[in-house]
Formats: sequence, structure tokens, C-alpha cells
Amino acid sequence: MSKVRFDISLSLDGFMAGPDQSVENPIGAGGMALFEWAFPLAAFRALQGRRGGEVNASTPVVEERFANAGAYILGRNMFGGGPGPWPEEPPWNGWWGDDPPYHAPVFVLTHHAREPLPMLGGTSFTFVTGGIEPALEQARVAAGDGDVVIGGGAATIRQYLAAGNVDELNVSLVPILIGRGERLFEDLPDLRLEQVRVVEAPGVTHVRYRVA
Amino acid sequence: MSKVRFDISLSLDGFMAGPDQSVENPIGAGGMALFEWAFPLAAFRALQGRRGGEVNASTPVVEERFANAGAYILGRNMFGGGPGPWPEEPPWNGWWGDDPPYHAPVFVLTHHAREPLPMLGGTSFTFVTGGIEPALEQARVAAGDGDVVIGGGAATIRQYLAAGNVDELNVSLVPILIGRGERLFEDLPDLRLEQVRVVEAPGVTHVRYRVA
Repeated sequence: MSKVRFDISLSLDGFMAGPDQSVENPIGAGGMALFEWAFPLAAFRALQGRRGGEVNASTPVVEERFANAGAYILGRNMFGGGPGPWPEEPPWNGWWGDDPPYHAPVFVLTHHAREPLPMLGGTSFTFVTGGIEPALEQARVAAGDGDVVIGGGAATIRQYLAAGNVDELNVSLVPILIGRGERLFEDLPDLRLEQVRVVEAPGVTHVRYRVA
Repeated sequence: MSKVRFDISLSLDGFMAGPDQSVENPIGAGGMALFEWAFPLAAFRALQGRRGGEVNASTPVVEERFANAGAYILGRNMFGGGPGPWPEEPPWNGWWGDDPPYHAPVFVLTHHAREPLPMLGGTSFTFVTGGIEPALEQARVAAGDGDVVIGGGAATIRQYLAAGNVDELNVSLVPILIGRGERLFEDLPDLRLEQVRVVEAPGVTHVRYRVA
């Protein structure tokens, strides 16, 4: 059955991004350390079109994120291109080059209308100005039997959590302290979770929760 | 080799106690939910002199906390008796009755001198007014080859972490959101951790870290 889900890396002090996020550094100061467990993995390198890398207990967790993902939803900052109206020359087509790692329809939340943007490899970006509900509806239709994956960032995920739209989440708990930054689990008084699976991997613990 | 260590239950939003802690409710509003994974366990009930209960994957984690514990250190609030000078009539001898679950020397950090307090079952309370360093020294001597366990609360643990005195910690990550309360991992910019073991158990994930 089709699910709405997301994956985050979380520091032990509860941050999913560092402070001082910017166009140049969208995961904030020190935020890169949240993903160090993933960088050496072949499954992660392949997303960037690179060969080689390791296989370890995190590999299936990375693969699961993309397996059966029928559509994605991204916040505007996650897609990039700065705040405000879309730049025209040169146009901003995302961080990922011509062949982004999604290989599926991606719905981008924005206040600024824009024509759909087909990319190589089955990825297409569709810009939704009506808010999180219409974006989710369109993503569900596009996903068919596949899952809808909320790609981030924190504000986007939090909105879908608050609206009760999320079925499942995977938290990759990283043994670092960031000190300041963006928290995910704030202002969500009604969220009830059940732990469904734990994976111990080098330098990280992956915990999957179901929204009760 | 003898270690200095502690165990905490942590909510997914990063709290080890709820808000509005008081003498009547030392773990704060909603804080009890942090320990619901432990309450049904026979290993936990036995600490309170009660029979029966469950055995599950959390059992060895609870047992480890007490195994090889040669001495404990508690903050004043963890020992209880309110702030300020010790009440005389009736005296405050802790929350645990005549036979506390420590069965070892316990050093209590306080600003108010008090005679040592021997209890049944091998527990004794010694009141240390000189701060965290002399308390740790005394606890190390008392522990011999055993470990020194920092029993809490958060402020006490944080002081020992900041001073670089802790060797190991166990975080029991509970799938609840408390929303407000007391965080542990704050103001610790120099703390470096390595994940050393993960235990998946019903309703909780136990992760052990070594201080690097």
C-alpha cells in the first residue's frame, strides 16, 4: 500500500540541519556531518553518478529511501534557486544537474508559479503554488502505487507531520552534537509514533517509526 | 577497567525530563513516559522489591546499569529533600525507603553539609559539598575496580560531560515528543562520541556511546 514517508539524519542533540542556512550552504554550518555516515556508501555515490564505495548495514536503508518512491515533494529551499521569484537567466534547475537522482515526478512547494521542468532519467519538477495539500494530492496521483517521499526541508516535513499526512519516518541518529540549528520535532503536540525497526550501522543508528 | 558512565532515557525531541520539575514530580510533566519501556520489566520491578514482570531485549540493558557499579553520584535534586538546608524533622533519606536500589556507596552533590547516612543493603549516602571533582575522586576510591555511575539529573551529568570525566553513556531513545523540558546535550561544544552498540527493544532503542 502506498505511503507518505520521509527520512532524516538527526544529531544526538536533535538537529536536522545546522545554523545559518543559506543558498550556498543549505544544510547550515556543521550540517554536513549529519551525512558522513552516507558519503562512503556505494549506494549513496551511485545517486551522484559516481562509482565505487562501501557496502555496510546502512546500504539497505539508503536503497529503501528510493525504492518504491513514486513521487517526491520538496520545499522551495530544498530545490534551491534562492527566495523570491525564479531567476530567468540563467534559470535555476536544481542542485543535481541534468539527471537528478529522483527518477520520478518531484513536486516543489513555492509561492512563485513556474512551468513544469522535465529533466533526464525520468525526473520532472512541477511547481505547486497552492500549498501542501494540493501538492500532496498531485504527488499521490503521480505516485500511483508508489510512495510519496517528503524530501525536506524541516519546515516542509513539519507541516506534513502537523497535518497528519505522514505514515512513516526513518530517523538516522548520528552521534554528533551541532549545538544550534534547525530542529524537526517542534510544535507537534499531537504526533504519536511507534518504533517499528532499528538498524545498527557504522557511526549511525537507523530507526523507523510509524505514525500511530 | 573502571569507567565513569551514565544512562538516560531521551525523547525523540531531545528531552530527558519534562518541564515544571518539582519536589513532587522530579522528572517533570510528562516525564514519566520516558520510562514506560522499563516499568513492565522484571529487572526494573526487582529494583523496587517487586516480583514478576517481563523479560525482553531491554532486560540486559537495565541489568548492565547496575552490574559492576561500584559507586554512584547524584545531584541534590535527584536525591531530593527540596532545595536549601536539610530538613531535620522528619529527616529526608531519599525516595527509596530503607533499602535503596543502589547497594553501593552513593555520593550526593549538595551545598549543605550533612553526616553520612548508611542504609540497608549496602547503600550509603555521603554528602559532598566541594563540587563535582571531589565527589568523583571519592566515588572512584569507593568504587575500586567497579564503575562510577552518574545517576543524574541532567545538570549533574552535563557538568561531568563538560569536564571530560565521562567514559561512556547509554541513551535509551523513546518514540515520544515531550515538547518542553530539560535537555541534556546543550552547551557541550567539545564532546565527541563514538557509537559502540545498539539494542532494538520494544518501544525503545538503546544506543551506547563512548566518549572519544
